[in-house]
Amino acid sequence: MELLKQRILKDGTLEDGNILKVDSFLNHQIDIGLLNEIGKEFKRRFSMEKVDKILTIETSGIAIASITAQYFNVPVVFARKTDSKIMDRDVYEASVYSYTKDKNYNIRVSKQFLNRGENILLIDDFLARGKAMEGLIDILNQGKCNLIGVGIVIEKGFQEGGKLLREMGVKVESLAIIDNPVDGKIIFK
Amino acid sequence: MELLKQRILKDGTLEDGNILKVDSFLNHQIDIGLLNEIGKEFKRRFSMEKVDKILTIETSGIAIASITAQYFNVPVVFARKTDSKIMDRDVYEASVYSYTKDKNYNIRVSKQFLNRGENILLIDDFLARGKAMEGLIDILNQGKCNLIGVGIVIEKGFQEGGKLLREMGVKVESLAIIDNPVDGKIIFK
Repeated sequence: MELLKQRILKDGTLEDGNILKVDSFLNHQIDIGLLNEIGKEFKRRFSMEKVDKILTIETSGIAIASITAQYFNVPVVFARKTDSKIMDRDVYEASVYSYTKDKNYNIRVSKQFLNRGENILLIDDFLARGKAMEGLIDILNQGKCNLIGVGIVIEKGFQEGGKLLREMGVKVESLAIIDNPVDGKIIFK
Repeated sequence: MELLKQRILKDGTLEDGNILKVDSFLNHQIDIGLLNEIGKEFKRRFSMEKVDKILTIETSGIAIASITAQYFNVPVVFARKTDSKIMDRDVYEASVYSYTKDKNYNIRVSKQFLNRGENILLIDDFLARGKAMEGLIDILNQGKCNLIGVGIVIEKGFQEGGKLLREMGVKVESLAIIDNPVDGKIIFK
């Protein structure tokens, strides 16, 4: 998606450890106009699929999934990372390892919001090693839902998440795929 | 907002401690069509104000703020509750006491996303004792931004947050104000 790539080149920055930061338009400050274009592009790429619901994960996936859902005309559910006193006890749960935080955390979705046989599109901001997506797919399997595909804004093409998912037969649509940065420069695959 | 009140009566539930749960349409599963109507209503109520940016707080505020921002044609910034390795060190920070979790947590916004003199509308799902809003206002003051007002989906009219903010001279627009539940029934003020 050219508009997105141009924006990454213009406003994305590389931090220590070659971490791509897109805080100024995607996951701290959010450019809603850009998200509208991202949502339309996901709809175009999954236009042949019947989608009943979009599932994402807090925090950064929520805005993207919500804006995107308008083009599919479906509800959004987001998996919670934090335990909440007011959350249902009756949940699907999966353990996810976070490389950036170097620890496992649990993600949870109330059983009542994933119905057997529903067609689910997963949406998230980043795909790197794929641990969060594996956790969401685990939850979909527990709920006997159908995984329609995975829509990702930025895939780190030099990490294994995309390859793992595609080898599982999952339709993965990433709007920008970046390669391992060289000399502090962002490169697309 | 009648549509919202009807939805609360239809799908909201009261849990132990008279906690109103709206997980099925507002803060776990999200009805995006309802959020579109909520966004339009916020725009109507703040139509006379110049808004440069919407500020909210993770997690439940993000979807509401993002959908609402489309009607104001402005970006969204969300305050982070969790420390992140990839977050800027140069932040405005405030401490917030959470009654549901019974502990203090810090909220942070990167300084670069709040510019002196910007007109900020605060949006959140719930207003109860007002601690999160006070934290956000603290951050706006640090950034020398102008607080345009506070847009709330559901205000707990029997707790002091709304009163405190209004006594400070803040324009608070709550789309539904609930009273203390009696005999397990939801009552609007």
